[in-house]
Amino acid sequence: MWLAQPGPKYPPTKGEVWPKPQIEVKEKTFYIFNPSQFKVKILDQTCAILTDAIARYSYIIENKLGAKTRDIEPLTLLSLSTNNDTYFKGHLNELQITLTSPCEEYPYLDMDESYNLTVSSSAKLISSSIWGAVRGLETFAQLFYLSDDRNEIQVNETVIFDFPRYKHRGLLLDTSRHFITLPNILKTLDAMAINKMNVFHWHIVDDQSFPYQSERFPELSERGAYDPSMIYTKADIERVIEHARNRGIRVIPEFDVPGHTGSWGNAYGGMLTECYENGQVIGFGPMDPTRNTTYKLLRDLFKEVQNLFPDTYFHVGGDEVELECWRSNPKLIEYMKVNNLTASDLHALFMRNVIPLLAKTTMPIVWQEVYDEGVSLSRDTLVQVWKYNWITEMINVLRTGHRVLFSSSWYLDALGSEWKDYYAADPRQMVFDVTGNETLLADIVGGEACMWGEMADDRNVINRVWPRASAVAERLWSYQDSMRRYKLSRAPSEAYHRIEEHACRMIRRGIDAQPPSGPGFCVV
Amino acid sequence: MWLAQPGPKYPPTKGEVWPKPQIEVKEKTFYIFNPSQFKVKILDQTCAILTDAIARYSYIIENKLGAKTRDIEPLTLLSLSTNNDTYFKGHLNELQITLTSPCEEYPYLDMDESYNLTVSSSAKLISSSIWGAVRGLETFAQLFYLSDDRNEIQVNETVIFDFPRYKHRGLLLDTSRHFITLPNILKTLDAMAINKMNVFHWHIVDDQSFPYQSERFPELSERGAYDPSMIYTKADIERVIEHARNRGIRVIPEFDVPGHTGSWGNAYGGMLTECYENGQVIGFGPMDPTRNTTYKLLRDLFKEVQNLFPDTYFHVGGDEVELECWRSNPKLIEYMKVNNLTASDLHALFMRNVIPLLAKTTMPIVWQEVYDEGVSLSRDTLVQVWKYNWITEMINVLRTGHRVLFSSSWYLDALGSEWKDYYAADPRQMVFDVTGNETLLADIVGGEACMWGEMADDRNVINRVWPRASAVAERLWSYQDSMRRYKLSRAPSEAYHRIEEHACRMIRRGIDAQPPSGPGFCVV
Repeated sequence: MWLAQPGPKYPPTKGEVWPKPQIEVKEKTFYIFNPSQFKVKILDQTCAILTDAIARYSYIIENKLGAKTRDIEPLTLLSLSTNNDTYFKGHLNELQITLTSPCEEYPYLDMDESYNLTVSSSAKLISSSIWGAVRGLETFAQLFYLSDDRNEIQVNETVIFDFPRYKHRGLLLDTSRHFITLPNILKTLDAMAINKMNVFHWHIVDDQSFPYQSERFPELSERGAYDPSMIYTKADIERVIEHARNRGIRVIPEFDVPGHTGSWGNAYGGMLTECYENGQVIGFGPMDPTRNTTYKLLRDLFKEVQNLFPDTYFHVGGDEVELECWRSNPKLIEYMKVNNLTASDLHALFMRNVIPLLAKTTMPIVWQEVYDEGVSLSRDTLVQVWKYNWITEMINVLRTGHRVLFSSSWYLDALGSEWKDYYAADPRQMVFDVTGNETLLADIVGGEACMWGEMADDRNVINRVWPRASAVAERLWSYQDSMRRYKLSRAPSEAYHRIEEHACRMIRRGIDAQPPSGPGFCVV
Repeated sequence: MWLAQPGPKYPPTKGEVWPKPQIEVKEKTFYIFNPSQFKVKILDQTCAILTDAIARYSYIIENKLGAKTRDIEPLTLLSLSTNNDTYFKGHLNELQITLTSPCEEYPYLDMDESYNLTVSSSAKLISSSIWGAVRGLETFAQLFYLSDDRNEIQVNETVIFDFPRYKHRGLLLDTSRHFITLPNILKTLDAMAINKMNVFHWHIVDDQSFPYQSERFPELSERGAYDPSMIYTKADIERVIEHARNRGIRVIPEFDVPGHTGSWGNAYGGMLTECYENGQVIGFGPMDPTRNTTYKLLRDLFKEVQNLFPDTYFHVGGDEVELECWRSNPKLIEYMKVNNLTASDLHALFMRNVIPLLAKTTMPIVWQEVYDEGVSLSRDTLVQVWKYNWITEMINVLRTGHRVLFSSSWYLDALGSEWKDYYAADPRQMVFDVTGNETLLADIVGGEACMWGEMADDRNVINRVWPRASAVAERLWSYQDSMRRYKLSRAPSEAYHRIEEHACRMIRRGIDAQPPSGPGFCVV
């Protein structure tokens, strides 16, 4: 029977963490936070990343938990006199932070993000890495909540031991189909930090526009950007990387080749293949794989990009190459004939030529087609799986000794998909269910939620990504389950309530998240 | 073959009107707009609605057509020296407005919205009604565009004769599932005016919350609103009505009964039916149709609401009544037995009791279930069709002499639906295709796009509604086609380009519309 339910569909929790920590013991006993009585003490190593994070989170705890009491009608209040509450244990006096190793400069794939956190009158955060300390501070801030009468900031006595389940927890943002301004990219990084995501995959250029401003090849954005105002300068990119670094987030650029390069052609038309139909040129297709000058340009451009982006990984794309165009072009038909190659071989040839253009210390990431075309890839290469046959594909990639990034189930441009749909997918679980083989699983290093930009622009991108990407964030961080070795995929019912608090938390911190599951409200 | 297409998927038009005027003849010849040389002359009747509209639209033409030239690289410009252009006809000197009847105070169902507009060096807007004049000013403003070098504001020589195809072109906004703040309601009205929509259907309360602040029954919102800050005061509502009136938009309140009333129960629990399972009360259902006090409260509340809202129509809901709850309640079981009634009869009884509570001059609108339950309805009643069997339902309603509002195909909460999906539905066409009967069609007085609030809150509601509701707006305004008597439903290909301009137009006027169909950009 359908009952009339006044109020929110899923009343939010209070002081619950998203993504859920691996081990968390929470008491009913609680402390009151009073900023004038509270101090943060750094007991061991420190650096600017840590002190900046402390300043950020102190501000959040003090100001971003929702509006305190205003003119609320008395009858709507649960009148709670805190000091008489049997669970009240006094004031929170301090947070002691023990960072046992010197800070690292940039986050990286194998970084340590674990931390221990104990909340009592003197709270303790212990980590052997700056990245773990940053994650622990986020968790610490999430434990606070307003009392029922909205007069006081409370935090429960809690012990947390936490670490991520997957190393690579990414978000792909497409800034080519629609231009996304710098403030929204920085905001996206803020939201990623709230969700403990650690890789910003910047799908910076594509067919439609080329907003990356190159020093070596300025014509690319001069002619390829939608508008002169819609570009990313070197200073913009440095600012993104710095903002990300401070939050333990890697920034990986993608320059997708040889397909998805229409906008390159505005400046360098000769790079692209002319596509033919009935003997007539009907337009442009992928880069021409037979032109040396193209590889020279890519080498020089990639060099510049690698100098700018400190991360070891670089995404060279390789997806959705329109082989039909290559098959229609007289010059390429001749080339394939002479060299006894198929169009598919041409794609492999192109990628085989492009990957070595990267520096020896740079590791490639490719979309799954590059693997599928049979290009021999180094052990370091990450293969990003995004198509429909994902379980078979992952198993194949893993069995040939390569590593997997999973994205197939996490396309945020599916506007009808809800957070719970994204939550249901767990790549290790899927592979384990089919193979029963546990040793393969470690090579699924993580995954990425993908915000393709066809229908997401500067005005709605934040709302489209959050909190739906939060489901991916929790899937990739939480639940090395003990019942079943790899966690049942369905979101637990408590998560429906917890994500409501989490969405309100993001909103209070300036991230315009959409309603997770239905009717409700946030007090901002 | 999939070609690499740099740039927007559908390049926007320049100076094309949405919704499309009925008759529009546009020349290639154009005029330049220079605010210092331009005057608006009122030649006949006038009033504050007209002078306010003139001020609004003058500001828009001058300031809201996009950024003028900044540091644009010369090579990206189509260098156009306007004054040497053979199509250049000089400056636009004035707009003469001839309103031939005195202004009316409030818009209404049968109001006249037609106008004639001629753009030459001395433009002329002629209407026999203030509402037509307001529509004509919107059209006038939409004809202007920036020159290719973005230096000048141009407008083409144009003749327009325009009027709406359907009288009732509405948008339903649900402010119960999520609270929508006053600024966003006013913004929604602004957007409706840009789209020539003329009815704001305010689904103000529902199960989840009761934000309407009643003077007579203040407990309803005191206990039923999500939060004391989330209410609409009398002053708020008066402001909405005034803002709407100035734009030729009617405001119709809906107080949905007897279902969807959970939040009423927070203050008046006795109004609701207790639902039973296995002899136990398991929660609350619809209003109890056998209690006199409920009807008394509704009579007094409706009286207050009718005094506040000037429109002749009032929506009493009547949808989705959980009859199972009535069938489970011992008191109602007894009542039905004694009176030889089914639960369905109880619903009819309830509506038969409620509709006469409205003033004699007030006309009811009901959801289709009320018609389906066999309640006898006056000829004035509008039956809003929203369920799956819409064609049969419309035909039935029309054949019994009642009038139809159509909504079934226009639910904006279907997040995966695009504007072109909404565009495809035309209620008169559907009925004509099945019946071949033209005389029935006039009684389909219009329709409404419905923004149910489960997943739409104050942060995303504007983006969710626009420009998807623009498709409904054009469907209801435009195309009394001559080829086929009732227009083929698919959006014409030119509309894909025109809605891109329209979305950018809304964005420049402060309405955060989402991308209509894919990659692109707006210069704001």
